[in-house]
Amino acid sequence: MGVYTIGIDLGGTNMRVALIKDGTTIVRKEEQATETQKGAADAIARMISMVDAVDPERKASAIGIGSAGPLDLDNGIILKTPNLVGWEGTPIVELMRQGTGREVYLNNDANVAGLAEAVFGGGKGCKSSVFITVSTGVGGGIVVNGHLLEGAYGYGGEIGCMIVADDDRKHDSLYAGTLESLCSGSALNLQAQKVYGPGTNAAYIFEQYAQNDMAAMGIIELWLEHFSRGLASVMQVIDPEVFVIGGSVVLHNPWLLEKLPEHIQPKVYEGLRDKINLRLPELGGDAGLIGAAYLAHPDYLN
Amino acid sequence: MGVYTIGIDLGGTNMRVALIKDGTTIVRKEEQATETQKGAADAIARMISMVDAVDPERKASAIGIGSAGPLDLDNGIILKTPNLVGWEGTPIVELMRQGTGREVYLNNDANVAGLAEAVFGGGKGCKSSVFITVSTGVGGGIVVNGHLLEGAYGYGGEIGCMIVADDDRKHDSLYAGTLESLCSGSALNLQAQKVYGPGTNAAYIFEQYAQNDMAAMGIIELWLEHFSRGLASVMQVIDPEVFVIGGSVVLHNPWLLEKLPEHIQPKVYEGLRDKINLRLPELGGDAGLIGAAYLAHPDYLN
Repeated sequence: MGVYTIGIDLGGTNMRVALIKDGTTIVRKEEQATETQKGAADAIARMISMVDAVDPERKASAIGIGSAGPLDLDNGIILKTPNLVGWEGTPIVELMRQGTGREVYLNNDANVAGLAEAVFGGGKGCKSSVFITVSTGVGGGIVVNGHLLEGAYGYGGEIGCMIVADDDRKHDSLYAGTLESLCSGSALNLQAQKVYGPGTNAAYIFEQYAQNDMAAMGIIELWLEHFSRGLASVMQVIDPEVFVIGGSVVLHNPWLLEKLPEHIQPKVYEGLRDKINLRLPELGGDAGLIGAAYLAHPDYLN
Repeated sequence: MGVYTIGIDLGGTNMRVALIKDGTTIVRKEEQATETQKGAADAIARMISMVDAVDPERKASAIGIGSAGPLDLDNGIILKTPNLVGWEGTPIVELMRQGTGREVYLNNDANVAGLAEAVFGGGKGCKSSVFITVSTGVGGGIVVNGHLLEGAYGYGGEIGCMIVADDDRKHDSLYAGTLESLCSGSALNLQAQKVYGPGTNAAYIFEQYAQNDMAAMGIIELWLEHFSRGLASVMQVIDPEVFVIGGSVVLHNPWLLEKLPEHIQPKVYEGLRDKINLRLPELGGDAGLIGAAYLAHPDYLN
């Protein structure tokens, strides 16, 4: 018969809803633009319709939502978040429960992607894994013994907030010296514009790097130094069996993962130097949906 | 009747063995100098005698050892460690098991102290806690849902290895920019000698600080900045309900904990700014013994 659950991936740009069988098989999927400016009520009404559309026979009795955060996990509420402006205070779990008549579970988008990769993807078979996504921002999710390390207030796994360097710059809401402010795609875009002028971006840095441009080589060397500081710290605080590292910056430049170990090694205990295990994600763009659905899966709940 | 276990606190200077009842009551305690230079076999033979001395009636069927590390927890072996020179490769768990005829459990000293404080001390009643000790070095232990986060290779909770700053200095084996190299008692001793000359130490800095000496105020301000970076990172990666912070540097200057929140606040998400919970340890010098004994306690093993 199989076990069915519904996964919802709620982002600032798009929202996707899928009926998923036995953890990873996407039976049916719907996608719409979130159109956050129309407000939470409008989007939630459409999400409820999408749930009915992917599962008209009500095979799934429970839904998992991976949402842009921060979130109040205890109460199922969206907090102030840059990606869902104006949605602050929305009791999304209660609204979806009432609207669909199903159990609803919530966690943040990087956490559920990390959960999916830990259980079914790059971290499969490992007892503990740390997922890091390097795209617009730097996000993460920590899974130990098959469960998310949510933290006391839902801030577990916010790897991008780790402070790894001195830094007098303060741009936007990113705190100076954090992994996000130094290593994210946005940070690389800013560096490109500073070095190469308006209109250039992170991709341009990597193009220049491929042509042995000195400035680009300096930027990438510094990226490796800063990112390896974060990984070294996590190796000696969480000590996961594996890191699964994705996001557009890494997926477009997977060779970064091959360069990192030599930067990590001098920063960790001798006994960890041959234990550096960095893998790419394996589930592609569906990790968020699969991880969200897994929040509601009996194997996760028990 | 009560539940009896034996705790052993094995350090580079002293080793202590206690029979402990119901988790925290020290029934009988023995202490000897470790005399590491006489070798592991000599010290282990004496530890076995001390076990018999504290529990001649064999009330305890199991022993927990908190040892200076790093350790190979899976195989119960002491790895290369600066505090037990020459003991590398000692299968301490097997030797103690054979010598005492009791079950033996092993973990590192900061971890077991953190476990004791989490369950019975400053973190009592909290679901998750991070213990940090700031003395000669900076060590730590992470407890989530009553269990140590040991990590895949036994390096979980090595908070002192977190890299929080740029730093061109490399002294001893401490990697530049780590919390240990910036905030430990040893680091403060080095800074004192640099600023105030030979023979001065960390305590002298704090004396000068109390007299509003500008150099001392600068050193302490930097200590607060660096230490708060580490705490902010941990708050957003582990997100514990409480930090228990001890070690001689903090215990002699407990007002440091009152100064830290204002340094942490700008470095964490808005939702965490009123959740900064820093407490002093409550178990004093017996935390290591109590935590070691708890490794072997039925409540911990089940």
